[in-house]
Amino acid sequence: MSTTARTAAHVSSRGQEMPASPIRKLMPLADEAKKRGVKVYHLNIGQPDLETPEPMRRRLTTLKDKVYAYSPSNGTPEYLDFLHAYYGKLGITLKPGEVLATTGGSEALLFAFMACADPGDEILTVEPLYTNYRSFAAMAGLSLLPIVTFGEDGFHLPARAEWEKALTPKTRLVLLCNPNNPTGTVYSKEEIVRAAEFCRDHGLFFVSDEVYREFLYDGRESVSALSLAGFEDEVVVVDSLSKRFSACGIRLGALVTRNADVAGACNRMAQGRLSPPGLAQYIAPGALELGPEYYGGVIREYQKRRDTLYDGLSKIPGVFLRKPEGAFYFIARLPVQDSDDFAAWLLSDFAFEGKTVMVAPASGFYVTPGLGLDEIRIAYVLKEDDLRDAVRVLAAALPAYRKAKGITS
Amino acid sequence: MSTTARTAAHVSSRGQEMPASPIRKLMPLADEAKKRGVKVYHLNIGQPDLETPEPMRRRLTTLKDKVYAYSPSNGTPEYLDFLHAYYGKLGITLKPGEVLATTGGSEALLFAFMACADPGDEILTVEPLYTNYRSFAAMAGLSLLPIVTFGEDGFHLPARAEWEKALTPKTRLVLLCNPNNPTGTVYSKEEIVRAAEFCRDHGLFFVSDEVYREFLYDGRESVSALSLAGFEDEVVVVDSLSKRFSACGIRLGALVTRNADVAGACNRMAQGRLSPPGLAQYIAPGALELGPEYYGGVIREYQKRRDTLYDGLSKIPGVFLRKPEGAFYFIARLPVQDSDDFAAWLLSDFAFEGKTVMVAPASGFYVTPGLGLDEIRIAYVLKEDDLRDAVRVLAAALPAYRKAKGITS
Repeated sequence: MSTTARTAAHVSSRGQEMPASPIRKLMPLADEAKKRGVKVYHLNIGQPDLETPEPMRRRLTTLKDKVYAYSPSNGTPEYLDFLHAYYGKLGITLKPGEVLATTGGSEALLFAFMACADPGDEILTVEPLYTNYRSFAAMAGLSLLPIVTFGEDGFHLPARAEWEKALTPKTRLVLLCNPNNPTGTVYSKEEIVRAAEFCRDHGLFFVSDEVYREFLYDGRESVSALSLAGFEDEVVVVDSLSKRFSACGIRLGALVTRNADVAGACNRMAQGRLSPPGLAQYIAPGALELGPEYYGGVIREYQKRRDTLYDGLSKIPGVFLRKPEGAFYFIARLPVQDSDDFAAWLLSDFAFEGKTVMVAPASGFYVTPGLGLDEIRIAYVLKEDDLRDAVRVLAAALPAYRKAKGITS
Repeated sequence: MSTTARTAAHVSSRGQEMPASPIRKLMPLADEAKKRGVKVYHLNIGQPDLETPEPMRRRLTTLKDKVYAYSPSNGTPEYLDFLHAYYGKLGITLKPGEVLATTGGSEALLFAFMACADPGDEILTVEPLYTNYRSFAAMAGLSLLPIVTFGEDGFHLPARAEWEKALTPKTRLVLLCNPNNPTGTVYSKEEIVRAAEFCRDHGLFFVSDEVYREFLYDGRESVSALSLAGFEDEVVVVDSLSKRFSACGIRLGALVTRNADVAGACNRMAQGRLSPPGLAQYIAPGALELGPEYYGGVIREYQKRRDTLYDGLSKIPGVFLRKPEGAFYFIARLPVQDSDDFAAWLLSDFAFEGKTVMVAPASGFYVTPGLGLDEIRIAYVLKEDDLRDAVRVLAAALPAYRKAKGITS
């Protein structure tokens, strides 16, 4: 056989195209800054600093199992009971088989994409968007077809005509994150119903990522797509315990749908990967001990943080943002031309009183090239005093950066 | 707009085609049998009954974290150190970035498939095969192209000419499980080198699933594809803690490759899903306390079980199997024409002294329709006395089934 003619094994196209995380890609620069003794405020990643509730942590000390065995593919009876109870309190009654335990919201997204669409199909959504949708779409062989939303509209949903215009014969599902990461927008019931009707009229699935469901400010209410009557065939909800219980690392979530075909397909995918994480499922029911005061306390804390950041950033000349409505992120426009460069500069070339700030450049939250270049995404998962200090750092950084780069516009 | 013309949202083709687990599909019949008071010996699923080692379980009681936060996407430093130390003891030195923490071997398989091949591409492998390869191939949009192996050959690998014949322009990788689930075959070094050379000669990846690496009987040795010199670009190894440490439920594994492009693609997929399970990564380093006597004890136990089953089953008239060499499974040929029917009958219509046996029909371990109809897969994960009793039950069941079905051949 000839060894000269052979081509070496090469990584797949989807492997090559798989995007790097815009949230984490600047991490080496942050590590360098820390080595130089600079304190870095992390506004780049949605890792809450709040404690995982004690009743969940306490469960670990009660585990008597000597064999850490596979759980059922769809979840342990205890975790499924917990999910039924949790949804019941939201007024959403689920039948057995309508909820599937997943390895975080991440796996629920991947299962939903794969069950709703085939390689080559399209996902209709809005941008800016949760950056990891790009990864799961690439893994599933799907294209993201986003309609642009604008800060001036508080990133609320485009009119129905825009959706009709964007639709193609390859569109299989509409994907929305509500409350929204990265914009902090909470869609109204009317917006959700409009999206659901659009889906029903065109035979599309409505994949609703509701992992920030409780994170609502100024007394707002959020509408779960599961609560809408008449859309049982269309709605697939992605859920996670990560943010609700500040338990990102345990990797536990859920996929909820009343469409029996989708539930069946996702259940068979779940059988393929055997089971969701067992220790996580074991501790989850500890959250049943948490009453409304738990959620109230968390919301109050995040609302205060939002206010601190919003008030502080709004006062910096050239910075634009609408008041975020939910979740714990927002997109802010800055007086810069290349926020990737600005974010890197903050870590490499700047310090104010020995401190700097790490932010996520917004370009990674857009699919359309060239968008988001003057925007950053901020996660407010730090204590109020730190946020106040981070605002001071940013307020000092912006004019210094503009001067260094000769920006006068 | 017209609502009569619309087509309802419908599940994807891959969702429809996603196979149900042949290991678990008879579970409702087993539950019914148990309700009737029949004791069911589970020989159908590879859930070891051995204890998860105490040093791992003990780690849970030492966890002081109050925030169960995301770990790095590629794994915690402690878990990665553990993996480097484990491979080091095998004589395999890994550089940083060559090993990635995954959510079980399952996720490592999915990442490997996706990084090595694009939708529409093919995986060349042998059958019978680990049934969940079918699920991950379907999720990744890939076809499985298996070459049949035979019990008479101890399910060892076909000659190179057969591989050459099966190759198509769409083939991107060769997939082998060594030691093998479901056959219990351990490939020789010569077989592994032959497979690796075939891959290198044709520009294919060599995905080697080595999750049963230590499960070797009669003093056999197993060759990791990672130990071969000159195949650094081709080899991608899938690994898992599930069987090695009887910790199937924690969902922790690894993907190991020296191909930087594949490692990069898998790392970006890992960023997309944020992190592997944190509690699992926390307890894993407890296994560093385990010495060679741990592995020795486990192997002795499984070898005894294998001997009990092999000796017992070989004596049943009409049953054929070669002595399994590794892992804790084997494929046995039975004097039946439809092992799906036989396996269901065992649960629904049969009991011997109030006991029956659950086995996995082998048809689900073949891709080619019509194969495996007179075979079953058996997992020996029960205590010796139970296995001895299960053999008695099977020995009574086979003539009773043949009589009930009028089989005389």
